Amino acid sequence: MAAKEEVKLLGFWVSPFVLRVEWALKIKGVKYEYIEEDIFDKSTLLMELNPVHRKVPVLVHDGTVIAESFVILEYIDETWKQNPLLPQDPYQRALARFWAKFAEEKIFEGAWNALCSQGEEKQKALQQTIEAVETLEGELQWKQQFFGGESIGYTDIILGWISYYLPIWEEVGSMKILDPVKFPATVAWINRFLKHPVIKDTFPRREMMLVYFHQRSEALGSTSHGWLRV
Amino acid sequence: MAAKEEVKLLGFWVSPFVLRVEWALKIKGVKYEYIEEDIFDKSTLLMELNPVHRKVPVLVHDGTVIAESFVILEYIDETWKQNPLLPQDPYQRALARFWAKFAEEKIFEGAWNALCSQGEEKQKALQQTIEAVETLEGELQWKQQFFGGESIGYTDIILGWISYYLPIWEEVGSMKILDPVKFPATVAWINRFLKHPVIKDTFPRREMMLVYFHQRSEALGSTSHGWLRV
Repeated sequence: MAAKEEVKLLGFWVSPFVLRVEWALKIKGVKYEYIEEDIFDKSTLLMELNPVHRKVPVLVHDGTVIAESFVILEYIDETWKQNPLLPQDPYQRALARFWAKFAEEKIFEGAWNALCSQGEEKQKALQQTIEAVETLEGELQWKQQFFGGESIGYTDIILGWISYYLPIWEEVGSMKILDPVKFPATVAWINRFLKHPVIKDTFPRREMMLVYFHQRSEALGSTSHGWLRV
Repeated sequence: MAAKEEVKLLGFWVSPFVLRVEWALKIKGVKYEYIEEDIFDKSTLLMELNPVHRKVPVLVHDGTVIAESFVILEYIDETWKQNPLLPQDPYQRALARFWAKFAEEKIFEGAWNALCSQGEEKQKALQQTIEAVETLEGELQWKQQFFGGESIGYTDIILGWISYYLPIWEEVGSMKILDPVKFPATVAWINRFLKHPVIKDTFPRREMMLVYFHQRSEALGSTSHGWLRV
């Protein structure tokens, strides 16, 4: 690690994708400058740095620019070797990536679709999301403290939003996904995750998020994914 | 590499996701046994090996099981170090992953949606796909032979389907995406890719694929993604 390296993160206060990058940098102990972007009135800087997607997070490290939270996490893990996010063994790495991808495609997208839709479509999305959490629950049964073992790793970071965002989405969308009776291992993981020293003070205020997601879910139809896949 | 290692690949003859894994194994010079699966009548083996998605490709390496083409490619690159698919430098790796993800989400999903839909929805999907190819074209302008430099790498493998599948989808869907006048760099890349010794004899017969995709695009609505995201 160079002594004078410069790390900047372009973010948006309520983005779970940005939070992933913040968690990873904090776990690594990398100092960074956070620059708040208004994603509804994008700056010239953002459009210059990420012309393809024009989305946050964008990581700028000594002049090189990286976008997409999944890609940034791999970059961070490869650049700063301390406190690894991914295991060393190729098979264990494949498992971590597999479950991260599963969580994103099945739980994140499912819950978001359920939040932003109504009627039959909402019920279908809800059912698929619950089934995905059930699969995850089975996976967690034999796990240690975290997916990453005794410390928070790649899969924990990708999945981390369910600890704080999902209960808010449940409230805004009048729906129930995280049933503690059905999913005791998942809920126990959530409680451990929320208490972790790196994680616990990083979330935006709940009341502000309730207002934000209430507005967003009303503004967006289920066909539009809004800031999904930032 | 162990002398007696066992590598098996569960595939389906027309799956571009399976082909990615075959290309990667061939580039690495890894011998493998190919097992054809009928994805419309799934075997007990497939359901045991990939209970979460029940999809191909599934790679079995000395008893460990890996699913999802993106995850398998990383595993292959980390397990067999010869002929690297990803560059060594973290930033170059991030770029390769970024463009692979872009190609998958914008071009693959866009073209598939255009193929399987009609009317306004088809036109919208088509337009978005063409815009994505335009972005890629800009990216290719300054590239060497391949995204991976002088040899085929990770991004080339993820994107490789456009060389052979996309013209077939264009024909089946009565649509035009790969305009050689608008996209000379992309079409030149396609021609180099198709002629590559590892690639050239790996594709299924065109006539069989025309029949298959004609049937699939009629059977599937635009809302169902069929074997997408295997």
